Amino acid sequence: MDQLLEEIVRPQLRNAILDEGLDSGIVDLGSEISDIRSQISNPRLALTLDGYVVTPWKFPGGDIGRICICGTVNDLAVCGARPIGIALGFILAEGFETAALRAITASIAVAAKEANVRVVTGDTKVVGRGQADGIYITTAGVGLVESSFNLHPSSVIPGDAILINGFIADHGLAVMLTREMPQIQTPIRSDVAPLNGLIAHVLKSGIDVRFMRDPTRGGLAGLCADLAKRSGRRVVLEEKAIPVRRETRHAAEMLGLDVLEVANEGKVVMVVKGEDAQRALEAMRLHPLGHDAAIIGRIGEKAEAICELLTTAGGSRVVQKPYGEQLPRIC
Amino acid sequence: MDQLLEEIVRPQLRNAILDEGLDSGIVDLGSEISDIRSQISNPRLALTLDGYVVTPWKFPGGDIGRICICGTVNDLAVCGARPIGIALGFILAEGFETAALRAITASIAVAAKEANVRVVTGDTKVVGRGQADGIYITTAGVGLVESSFNLHPSSVIPGDAILINGFIADHGLAVMLTREMPQIQTPIRSDVAPLNGLIAHVLKSGIDVRFMRDPTRGGLAGLCADLAKRSGRRVVLEEKAIPVRRETRHAAEMLGLDVLEVANEGKVVMVVKGEDAQRALEAMRLHPLGHDAAIIGRIGEKAEAICELLTTAGGSRVVQKPYGEQLPRIC
Repeated sequence: MDQLLEEIVRPQLRNAILDEGLDSGIVDLGSEISDIRSQISNPRLALTLDGYVVTPWKFPGGDIGRICICGTVNDLAVCGARPIGIALGFILAEGFETAALRAITASIAVAAKEANVRVVTGDTKVVGRGQADGIYITTAGVGLVESSFNLHPSSVIPGDAILINGFIADHGLAVMLTREMPQIQTPIRSDVAPLNGLIAHVLKSGIDVRFMRDPTRGGLAGLCADLAKRSGRRVVLEEKAIPVRRETRHAAEMLGLDVLEVANEGKVVMVVKGEDAQRALEAMRLHPLGHDAAIIGRIGEKAEAICELLTTAGGSRVVQKPYGEQLPRIC
Repeated sequence: MDQLLEEIVRPQLRNAILDEGLDSGIVDLGSEISDIRSQISNPRLALTLDGYVVTPWKFPGGDIGRICICGTVNDLAVCGARPIGIALGFILAEGFETAALRAITASIAVAAKEANVRVVTGDTKVVGRGQADGIYITTAGVGLVESSFNLHPSSVIPGDAILINGFIADHGLAVMLTREMPQIQTPIRSDVAPLNGLIAHVLKSGIDVRFMRDPTRGGLAGLCADLAKRSGRRVVLEEKAIPVRRETRHAAEMLGLDVLEVANEGKVVMVVKGEDAQRALEAMRLHPLGHDAAIIGRIGEKAEAICELLTTAGGSRVVQKPYGEQLPRIC
C-alpha cells in the first residue's frame, strides 16, 4: 500500500516542497511576508482543517478529492486569507481500489492548480477492510491573512447588504440524488469550486466587506441563522432574490427538502457596507464564479438575533438552523 | 452529537482563538515574526499533518489524544519549527462513548499545555456505527522555523555523531502488550511526549545540528535506513550504546520483535557535528526528557547508502527499513 501511494499519489501532486519528503512541508515566507508587510502592519496566519467523509466518493460535478481541496481553500478565503499550503491526510480501508485512489488524486491535483495552492505535506493510514467506508480525507490549510478588515459576525451593522455569488443547493442535491436514486440521470451538478480567486477579486475592488462565510453544511439557512445569533442582529432574506435553478428546486421538492438548508461547496455569502452593495455585485459578476451573483438580503435595524425570510408569497417566516443534518455525509 | 461536542470538547480546549469559532483559526504573527526576524533573515513556515488510528485508544502512558498532539508537535520540532497552532479533526463512529471522548479531550488539553501550543481550530465528522473503529483523529500543525540550520538528510557528513534522547521501543511495546495480552500487567509505559522543549533547549545551546527526526513508525531502524538512503552515506549504529530498558527488551523477545523496529513517540534522533557530540549529549541530559540520552552512532566515511549495526556480540549487520508495519495501528 505504501508503495502504491508512492506510485499513485506523490507523482500527481509533486512540487518542490512535497518532494523534500520531510516531516513538515516548509514554505519560505520571505516573499510572502514582504508582500503583506507592504499592505498591513500586522500579518496574521489562518489555519483550518476539515474532514471529508462524503458518500459516494464521486458525484456529478465533483468528487471527494475536489471537495477536500476546495473546502479547505474556501475556509481560508472567507477569513480573508490567501492559501499558502495544504496538508492532506488519507484514511483508507485496506483494499480500496487503486483506480479510485488515482482518480481522486488527479482531482486533487486539478483543484489545487485551479486554486493556485500546493499540497506541501501529507499522511496516509490504512485501516482494516470494511472500516473507514472506503476513504476519508482530512485536509488542513494554512494561509496569510491579507485583508485588513475585521471579518467577523460581530462586525455587521444595520443597513449592510447580503450577497451570494450564484445558485444555491446544487451540491447537496447532486450528492443526494446520486446516492438515493443512482438509476436516474440528473442535470444537477455540484457547484464545488475554489473561491479564493473570486474573493480576492472582490476584496481588491475596495469594497468594505464586513463578514464572509461559505454556506456548506446547514446551507444558507444555517449560515444566516448563525449570523443572526452571533451578531445579535436581525438578518433579513428576500426569497425571490435568492438564486435557485428550476431543476434544483424541483428535486428539492421531490425529496421534501428546503433549498435554504442544502449544502453548497462553491458559494460565498458576503455581508458588505450597504452603499457598496451594487459595486460588490458588479465585481462578483465580473468573475466566472460570480456570473449569477445576487443581493439577497440585508442586516435589519432591530437588535434581535433572528433571521427572517420575506417569502415570494408576500409573507414572512423565521429561518432556523437546521436540526442535525438533512442526510449525513454530503460534505 | 454536535451538542455533545460543544459541551465536551470546546470547554476543555478553549482559548481566545478557538473561541472565535471562525472557519479558520487566526494567529497574530506580529510578535512571532519580529522575534524571528531578529534571528534569521528569511522566516519559514512549517505545515504538518498526521492521522492517528491507534487501537486501543488508551494504553499505559498515554492515549490517542496525547499522541495526536505530541506527534504533530514533534513533526514540527524536528524540522526546527516552533509550533504556533494546532488543528484537530475527529472522525467519530456514531455511538462512540462520551466518557471516552471526554477523557481523550482532557488528554489533548494536558498535552497541548505541556507543549505550550493552542488548538486554534477543529472539525468533527460522525460516521455510521461500527465504522471508523470508534475514533480517528487527524491533527495538523503549523510552526515558524526558528533555526537557521538546513536540517536535511543530505546535510550530514562523515564524522557526524548520532544521538538519541533516551530508551527506545517503549511506545510500541506498551500498545502491543495492551492489545495482544490485555490480561497481563506490564510495567512498560509509552514514552509519548512533546519534544519541542527539549529540541529548543539543544538548539539554543549553539550545537551544530545537521538533521533530526523522530523514530515513530519503523522505529530507529526505519529512520536510520532512510537516512542512509537519502544521504548516500554509511550510517553506523553501536548496539551496546542504544538505550533499551530490560523489561522492554524481554517483552520484544517474547513477541519476536526487533526493538530497533518498534515505534517511539517521545524520542528524537539528532545528527550533530562530530566535535559537538559531547556538548549535545550534556545539553540533552539537562532536560527532563533527555536524562537517558546517548551517543549511539556516527556517519561513516564511505559514500555507501547503508545502515550498519555493530552488534553487542562483536559482529555487524545491515539494518533495513522494516517491511510493512510490525503490527498495524500503533501510532
